[in-house]
Amino acid sequence: MADVISMAAGPLAERLNGRLVGDASRKITHVATLENATVDAVSWVGSKTFVERAKSSEAGVLVVPADCDETFDCPAIQVSDPDIAICEVQRWLADPVDGVPVGVDPTAVVDPTAKMEGAAIGPRAVVRAGAVVGARTQIHAGVYVGSECVIGEDCVIWCNVVVRERTTLGNRVVIHPNATIGADGFGYLFREGLHKKIPQTGAVVIEDDVEIGANTAIDRARTGVTRIGAGTKIDNLCQIAHNVQIGADCMLVSQIALGGSATLGHHVVMGGQSGISDHVQVGNGVLVAAKTTVMKNFPDGAQLRGIPAVDNARFSRQQATVRRLPMWIDRLKALIKRVDALEKPNRSDG
Amino acid sequence: MADVISMAAGPLAERLNGRLVGDASRKITHVATLENATVDAVSWVGSKTFVERAKSSEAGVLVVPADCDETFDCPAIQVSDPDIAICEVQRWLADPVDGVPVGVDPTAVVDPTAKMEGAAIGPRAVVRAGAVVGARTQIHAGVYVGSECVIGEDCVIWCNVVVRERTTLGNRVVIHPNATIGADGFGYLFREGLHKKIPQTGAVVIEDDVEIGANTAIDRARTGVTRIGAGTKIDNLCQIAHNVQIGADCMLVSQIALGGSATLGHHVVMGGQSGISDHVQVGNGVLVAAKTTVMKNFPDGAQLRGIPAVDNARFSRQQATVRRLPMWIDRLKALIKRVDALEKPNRSDG
Amino acid sequence: MADVISMAAGPLAERLNGRLVGDASRKITHVATLENATVDAVSWVGSKTFVERAKSSEAGVLVVPADCDETFDCPAIQVSDPDIAICEVQRWLADPVDGVPVGVDPTAVVDPTAKMEGAAIGPRAVVRAGAVVGARTQIHAGVYVGSECVIGEDCVIWCNVVVRERTTLGNRVVIHPNATIGADGFGYLFREGLHKKIPQTGAVVIEDDVEIGANTAIDRARTGVTRIGAGTKIDNLCQIAHNVQIGADCMLVSQIALGGSATLGHHVVMGGQSGISDHVQVGNGVLVAAKTTVMKNFPDGAQLRGIPAVDNARFSRQQATVRRLPMWIDRLKALIKRVDALEKPNRSDG
Repeated sequence: MADVISMAAGPLAERLNGRLVGDASRKITHVATLENATVDAVSWVGSKTFVERAKSSEAGVLVVPADCDETFDCPAIQVSDPDIAICEVQRWLADPVDGVPVGVDPTAVVDPTAKMEGAAIGPRAVVRAGAVVGARTQIHAGVYVGSECVIGEDCVIWCNVVVRERTTLGNRVVIHPNATIGADGFGYLFREGLHKKIPQTGAVVIEDDVEIGANTAIDRARTGVTRIGAGTKIDNLCQIAHNVQIGADCMLVSQIALGGSATLGHHVVMGGQSGISDHVQVGNGVLVAAKTTVMKNFPDGAQLRGIPAVDNARFSRQQATVRRLPMWIDRLKALIKRVDALEKPNRSDG
Repeated sequence: MADVISMAAGPLAERLNGRLVGDASRKITHVATLENATVDAVSWVGSKTFVERAKSSEAGVLVVPADCDETFDCPAIQVSDPDIAICEVQRWLADPVDGVPVGVDPTAVVDPTAKMEGAAIGPRAVVRAGAVVGARTQIHAGVYVGSECVIGEDCVIWCNVVVRERTTLGNRVVIHPNATIGADGFGYLFREGLHKKIPQTGAVVIEDDVEIGANTAIDRARTGVTRIGAGTKIDNLCQIAHNVQIGADCMLVSQIALGGSATLGHHVVMGGQSGISDHVQVGNGVLVAAKTTVMKNFPDGAQLRGIPAVDNARFSRQQATVRRLPMWIDRLKALIKRVDALEKPNRSDG
Repeated sequence: MADVISMAAGPLAERLNGRLVGDASRKITHVATLENATVDAVSWVGSKTFVERAKSSEAGVLVVPADCDETFDCPAIQVSDPDIAICEVQRWLADPVDGVPVGVDPTAVVDPTAKMEGAAIGPRAVVRAGAVVGARTQIHAGVYVGSECVIGEDCVIWCNVVVRERTTLGNRVVIHPNATIGADGFGYLFREGLHKKIPQTGAVVIEDDVEIGANTAIDRARTGVTRIGAGTKIDNLCQIAHNVQIGADCMLVSQIALGGSATLGHHVVMGGQSGISDHVQVGNGVLVAAKTTVMKNFPDGAQLRGIPAVDNARFSRQQATVRRLPMWIDRLKALIKRVDALEKPNRSDG
């Protein structure tokens, strides 16, 4: 076990540029949620919504909003952005993350034409001809970096990731274990009852600050590039098909699928297990609910739900209509009886 | 090819503690289903439902329920639980499964501080500082075991699995190839148009007798642990997000997704491609149908279906209502005509 | 960077057996879509539908249908099948794909009883006892080939793929990175509150010309084999459960799931994120729309949509009915008022 780091409330407040209310000597060793915190933990109140839960928490120290004047049983540190502040504290107190030392591990298989100055190449990694790996980038155990790949600085490529030839990665890109970047796209021509492979000779470009989840697959383009915009975050087990174009700062939650040549604007958010069909384009800031499938284009700001996807408001109306249907059927039944009654005198007239 | 093992009906019955009806010398070499069985195969009748199919089977020997007095063309062995018995026979007759010999393969990369007494570490595996691997546990080729991991006894970690730092595994845990345990959770704070990473400094705890499918991803907690309860079975390509808490003896079928901090009770069953949203809690014995998405809490014993999930009975009623809708619309049309007719004389009266 | 290959329109037309209209000396270096093409690119017009888009393309050369008499600003090459022809051109102009040289890499771990004449075994690959790898087959870095596997000729097994023991692959099979072939099926017996593992002692057979996507999982059979028919193409992140039987020339798009013992005919097409339940059988030429879940058997030629899947036509009718529902409810409301009005005089009569 790594040595336990401990911090007192006083120095913690100082380091956070916060205002301490209460005992400056109270010591904590780790961050925990309000529910799980024990007396040796620091927890946090992201907004006033959480004040009541904080009052019943057993945390030893709380990080709270600057305008929070509540009294707690434990020392409280007022800061301008508690959510950001607690992330800092997490980093200070965390056990170390497995890293790779700068240099080339003797068990790595590295082509002499690869350039890796200042990079960290782990055990059993493979780096092929003409690849470039930037300074301080960590290539973990078992990773494959194909020929002519260009990987920027300060990236972390986790164990057993495969990055095929001619992929370009920006700076500070993180790729989690067992992800596959640059495999062939799924393209065939159907001729005489057989599927003939369309060559997938394009590449993948991943811009700065992108994070890619474990076991996610991003296919190379048929021609040109599949592009992931700067700052976009992709969760585990996602499928990004050939020639997809993703804008900047999108959030794609787990198991989403983007069909071939699908195009996303900036700040698109997709919920888990949702999908976008081949060649479909959605604009900036589009929100796609979990399990939704988007089968046609939608403009900036659309909020989508359903299979196939429709506007959120329309989906809600449809759902409400279906929910109230038994009531309308009851009214119809009643009305049939009333018309039966109305017809009877008429008939007796006949 | 491994030598073919063959057993005669007599010794087979004896070893199964069963009662043989028919020729004790009939020899079989393998287990097969009723449909696929040939004369050199033993097949089984799980319950009386399968008696008719068994009669047309070409199996050389049948394992049948103790109370099954049917006459078959081949020898039959009566046992108390044929489903369990045939599993035993499968194990006796199976070709060997690839194993790893106890000791450390010379191509493995093992930190001198790791403890692996009586464990089996395969080719190209990596075991980092302070990791502990229990007796008779098999670490197959290409596996990564991060620093300070604690892995119990009699586990099987299949090829190219990645287990990141500080993961804890109980005894008899099986993890299938290319699974990823302990990657960072998908957590960001949105500030000034950018997604800032929330540190994922927690861990993963996997209890005894858990089995985890190929290419499945289980993320480490933000703080605290992501926990998989004892005896739970998780299929291929599943997503278990950070801080998920799964009870004991659950069955999670392929491609399910659990959002961050989702909580499942014991004996929960989830069908393929279903999902549970972030922070949602479901109780013990909950059944989630295939493709369902659970978006709010449900108590013990709930049976759920739909997107979003509702109670099974309510879902069926809604489906039935929609199915009968054309009939009600026809009745409405007819009623409109009847009212038209009723209004006419009135109008002519006017 | 690899040297740029360049071809002039004249030799290109000749090599394609096409008829050149325009300047034979125009040189191109790569293939691009009509939208992305620059003057140094060749693009193509798959059918007359694309003629208008071709006219505004900046491509240096166009490959067009033989019966296309349109005049373009650039040289055009008329061929009988432009889609097929442009694939040829892509192959001629493409940068090289990472390959493995014939022979066994010194860092590979190969059992002396494995037979690999004329095969190419890459760095850190593992090939176990009794395995057979055919001529010209490429086993890329980090691949695991289990005992007694039989792999045909001209296959490409990409990095970090795991092929467990006794799997059979035909000729020209391609498996993309991080796929898992032959892991245990997900089968348990529920006894006394616990899930007891059913042995998964069968195998996987993959026939000629199959392609399998990155991070896809194909489980071995409980007994007998899981079979993938010749020419079938499976995309990334798909789940093929134990004992599944897939016919020839199917197209299974990303993230589909086939439950245990599901059976598919020939030429079945499944859209992304669709699924077929355990033991369900679908016939030849069945089309399953994206996100659909097939829960019962369907015959040849069925076109399916919905959860659970119904015939396409029926699905469309249901959708249309639901869409028009507000209109029918409005009519019902109006009718209620008319009946109210009809009843009033009657009442005043009373």
